[in-house]
Amino acid sequence: MTEAAPKSLARARELVAPALAAAAQTLSPELRRIVEYHWGFVDAAGARIRAAAGKALRPTLAMLSAEAVGASADRARAGAAAVELIHDFTLLHDDVMDGDRERRHRPTAWVVFGSGPAICAGDALVLLAQRVLLADSSPARVAALAALGESAAEVIAGQALDLSFEGRLDVGLDAYLAMAGRKTGALLGCAASIGAILAGAPESSVAALRAYGVALGLAFQAVDDWLGIWGAPERTGKPVANDLRQRKASLPIVFALAAPGAEARELRALLERAAPADEDAVQRAVELLEACGAAARTRVEALGQIEIARAALESAPLEAAARVELLELAAFVVQREF
Amino acid sequence: MTEAAPKSLARARELVAPALAAAAQTLSPELRRIVEYHWGFVDAAGARIRAAAGKALRPTLAMLSAEAVGASADRARAGAAAVELIHDFTLLHDDVMDGDRERRHRPTAWVVFGSGPAICAGDALVLLAQRVLLADSSPARVAALAALGESAAEVIAGQALDLSFEGRLDVGLDAYLAMAGRKTGALLGCAASIGAILAGAPESSVAALRAYGVALGLAFQAVDDWLGIWGAPERTGKPVANDLRQRKASLPIVFALAAPGAEARELRALLERAAPADEDAVQRAVELLEACGAAARTRVEALGQIEIARAALESAPLEAAARVELLELAAFVVQREF
Repeated sequence: MTEAAPKSLARARELVAPALAAAAQTLSPELRRIVEYHWGFVDAAGARIRAAAGKALRPTLAMLSAEAVGASADRARAGAAAVELIHDFTLLHDDVMDGDRERRHRPTAWVVFGSGPAICAGDALVLLAQRVLLADSSPARVAALAALGESAAEVIAGQALDLSFEGRLDVGLDAYLAMAGRKTGALLGCAASIGAILAGAPESSVAALRAYGVALGLAFQAVDDWLGIWGAPERTGKPVANDLRQRKASLPIVFALAAPGAEARELRALLERAAPADEDAVQRAVELLEACGAAARTRVEALGQIEIARAALESAPLEAAARVELLELAAFVVQREF
Repeated sequence: MTEAAPKSLARARELVAPALAAAAQTLSPELRRIVEYHWGFVDAAGARIRAAAGKALRPTLAMLSAEAVGASADRARAGAAAVELIHDFTLLHDDVMDGDRERRHRPTAWVVFGSGPAICAGDALVLLAQRVLLADSSPARVAALAALGESAAEVIAGQALDLSFEGRLDVGLDAYLAMAGRKTGALLGCAASIGAILAGAPESSVAALRAYGVALGLAFQAVDDWLGIWGAPERTGKPVANDLRQRKASLPIVFALAAPGAEARELRALLERAAPADEDAVQRAVELLEACGAAARTRVEALGQIEIARAALESAPLEAAARVELLELAAFVVQREF
């Protein structure tokens, strides 16, 4: 987070925080504790703290999507809470699956509570999201739930595809983008349109907002992948060039391995042998990535998706103020790291 | 399964099989393969086989609940498929969490595909159940989805509670029954009423059927727990007295540890030291359980729940033929093992 964080993020956090806290109250004590730990409300022993919260990017999109079609932020509240709950479900499960031990500079939930309880907590959030939406007063709550369910199913399919990529050096750009579109794009597409769905907006506006969100998601993922190689460890909470060490099929690596030339061949040979373990090998792999133009191409990909997102917003008659805030958010997603 | 398996089970399998197969077609290839393996449709390599399927107890309950309120079996199809999908979700995740390596005499999905993909497959089934119900034509499909969601949330809370019982020898009968009511009773209660909900039956009939299902679930769990100690290994696919070896807080053990007398004290001392490892210790623990009356009390508990289930069916004006089949099913659940 930089100083330039758009005001809409804080506004959405205020909108959604009471709804999330109330939803968590309906969980059993065992599950509530895990979820509240994950949110940074309590420490591992259950004592109240105030750890750094998530950015609330998805609730912000939900809120702005209602405002973009002339509805109030309140109209989006249940949708904003539900997409955030689905996002938290994916984080809890992904951390178990990927064996990630740290998130936002704290031990992940499965490290603290065990993987079984963390899996249960993720499962519980899927059903909590459903409950929150069905309790909303909008006549379109079922349509919103259907859209959220379809996008959550896409996220899961994307995660399964991503797991199947592990250790593979033959993942092409199309396959990578299809995976990222499902794993990251689908839920952002839903977040960026669920408020409009709840507001009963016409399908053309919903579709434009969804397209904006999907493109924003692809930009977001490209930036994340760039950070996975070139991000500062104190910021990402991971070692320098972590994705290289893990030989993850991330965007810069996919670009580099598809490139012609001696550098790409040397990189492939280096990665085929084993994950680069010593610092010299990691350093050389990063040099080769840069020589292939992978860093620049990843940034271009992110900016290209932002352009698609911008064009999508212009394809429908949306409220000007919300449109500006959606554009600010897009700029923030890309600027936060480059 | 005995020769005396009620005909309703086979009838429900026929009703629901095409709906389940069609639902699986909508999954991504990676996820479909895991789900179809879990169902026994394909082997680990993806080749078509016909392994032993599940009993389809939950689809049968769903079907009979529609017939019990005068609707056709067809009316229950989506509900029957959805509860089975939720059941399969719980099996896929529980096997990962409990580290169980075998189910229906085949390696569990996580053993074959890895725990990450198996978790994804379970997640996908929750959303598939939602999709199947929302695609139904019944005006009550949203009410059915809400009921299914609430019961699935109960199952997850019950599983989290069960995980928290691990290694504890102080779980009382009330705590145990509260856990089993959530983990097993809730979904059977939903299964036994979802067809009636979809048929638009009055709440009194729905409530009676749900109460029948919850009690049936508690009977089912008592029988399962009895089998966990006294079941034949060739039938359960687990070692003799497996729950004792794992010091699981199952019903016979809860009964025994709450009993007065020297046998209960000796059993507690034996289990407090460590899980009984050698065959003599296991044999002695089984003797102590029997001396405490735990086997008999577990059977009495199951039969008492069946009586509650029977009384629930008489509390509402249900169709006679379906009521008979529901009673047959209850008898089958208890007889299959005693």
